[in-house]
Amino acid sequence: MLSTIFGSATLGFAANLITADQVGILPMIVNFTFFVAYISMGAAFVFFISQRNSVAPEYRTALTLSAIIVGIAAFHYFYMKGLYSDVTLPLLAANGANYAEITRNSFLGIINFRYMDWLITTPLLVAKIPLAVAAGRKVGKVITYLIIADLLMIVAGFIGEQYVDNTGMHLLWGAISTIGYVGIIYFLFTTVKEMAKTAEPEEQWAVKWMTMFVITGWGIYPIGYMIPSLLPQLDLNIVHAVYNLGDQINKIGPGIIVYLAGAQLMSRRQRETPAVEVSTGKAPVPAFSPAA
Amino acid sequence: MLSTIFGSATLGFAANLITADQVGILPMIVNFTFFVAYISMGAAFVFFISQRNSVAPEYRTALTLSAIIVGIAAFHYFYMKGLYSDVTLPLLAANGANYAEITRNSFLGIINFRYMDWLITTPLLVAKIPLAVAAGRKVGKVITYLIIADLLMIVAGFIGEQYVDNTGMHLLWGAISTIGYVGIIYFLFTTVKEMAKTAEPEEQWAVKWMTMFVITGWGIYPIGYMIPSLLPQLDLNIVHAVYNLGDQINKIGPGIIVYLAGAQLMSRRQRETPAVEVSTGKAPVPAFSPAA
Repeated sequence: MLSTIFGSATLGFAANLITADQVGILPMIVNFTFFVAYISMGAAFVFFISQRNSVAPEYRTALTLSAIIVGIAAFHYFYMKGLYSDVTLPLLAANGANYAEITRNSFLGIINFRYMDWLITTPLLVAKIPLAVAAGRKVGKVITYLIIADLLMIVAGFIGEQYVDNTGMHLLWGAISTIGYVGIIYFLFTTVKEMAKTAEPEEQWAVKWMTMFVITGWGIYPIGYMIPSLLPQLDLNIVHAVYNLGDQINKIGPGIIVYLAGAQLMSRRQRETPAVEVSTGKAPVPAFSPAA
Repeated sequence: MLSTIFGSATLGFAANLITADQVGILPMIVNFTFFVAYISMGAAFVFFISQRNSVAPEYRTALTLSAIIVGIAAFHYFYMKGLYSDVTLPLLAANGANYAEITRNSFLGIINFRYMDWLITTPLLVAKIPLAVAAGRKVGKVITYLIIADLLMIVAGFIGEQYVDNTGMHLLWGAISTIGYVGIIYFLFTTVKEMAKTAEPEEQWAVKWMTMFVITGWGIYPIGYMIPSLLPQLDLNIVHAVYNLGDQINKIGPGIIVYLAGAQLMSRRQRETPAVEVSTGKAPVPAFSPAA
């Protein structure tokens, strides 16, 4: 088995000549989505970093964090894409390949990279939400609570993944992980929502939509977590495809929200008090309406 | 033996399909922490560089140094992660692998990269502390003393690592290295502490917390140094895991301290004297309260 892996891994680019005739259409689609996620995350990084000075000053930290989140994801997707196109596809294309076994091993190898990514990016994603109303408010404490709940969610999830062949333990750690997830939602709907009440309209809008991503978009992850133990017959390539699409929405989306709110806030302030424009020496930015 | 290493080293990406079933859970965790350290250091680099203009002008040099420190570490972790995931893991996964011997050889190989990193980053880390109170004070001399003590610590430690199989020499050079470490603490608690007394509250806060990192967080290194000779039975992967976590705390932590103090100082100054805003041409930054 090991010699098969080693031999195939030397293929490199040749792996990209593998066709659907050899491995089926689903692995080709998954390979495609890995590549697209890698490039789109990198593109979003450049956008957020470049536009940093086009948002209201108090939104620049949140936009830097948005850039870092997608930048980190671009790196991890680079490695995951490599594992999929340079290792998994050649193994699947080999004569007499065991599709189910290769797919499962590859999925469990790649999931480690997903957790490395989530361990760094999800604390930043939850920290960004109170940062959207940080001007003039003390947000240090609620950010700490959100990050602790988030780390519980990710670390318990990672431990649970190691028990994928032991359904009881897998579900137990999944349940512990869910406590963290519920904790995040709790703080967003109490402390953060309360803070947002006295914030600017653009800030309220940003908090509302970033919270929406957490309660809807993040819902795909517990489902993906349970499939290998509860639905072992399901082709895990479907989970890859859903994760690859979901990650892009859940990471790039909140960054766009922050950008639109910050640009809108800057633009409105410049219309209302032209003096700000003079003191900052910045030219007006176009008025993106979040509602548009 | 060499041909095994070379054969395995060509695996590259395939190594990432190795599972805990083959090598045990600890090497998987260590591999994970190498990867996370590599990416989190890179992410911190982007953050500090991007936020440079959001701190008070006299803190920008310290923030640039903070970025360089984690940027250097990201490169070294890239190479260390490669040695671990592409060489060490495949060797451990091979049939009949001698776990203890491979782990020790890999540890002693990787430690060279740690010293390359420390040789450049630790002088910058100690130099950053007086820089936090540099405005209006002469800090050149104390920075020189701190760097000399630091270099004694690192160079003696590196020489001592070469005598890991000779306990007497190993401990002798360890003791010389400790003189350097004690020297750093001495200058921090005398000259630097004295300077901080007349500094702004944010600057005092920054000096206090960066000193704290040196006297607590740095404590893991002498312990890690002594383990291969004094506790040869201990799994050296534990030392890797502690170093990988400790390095992130000790390098990213002081950068965040500098950032928060600099942002807070800028924000307070803008509230108290709006004229500063005009003279710097900067818009107000959000009020991050280090105390929050």
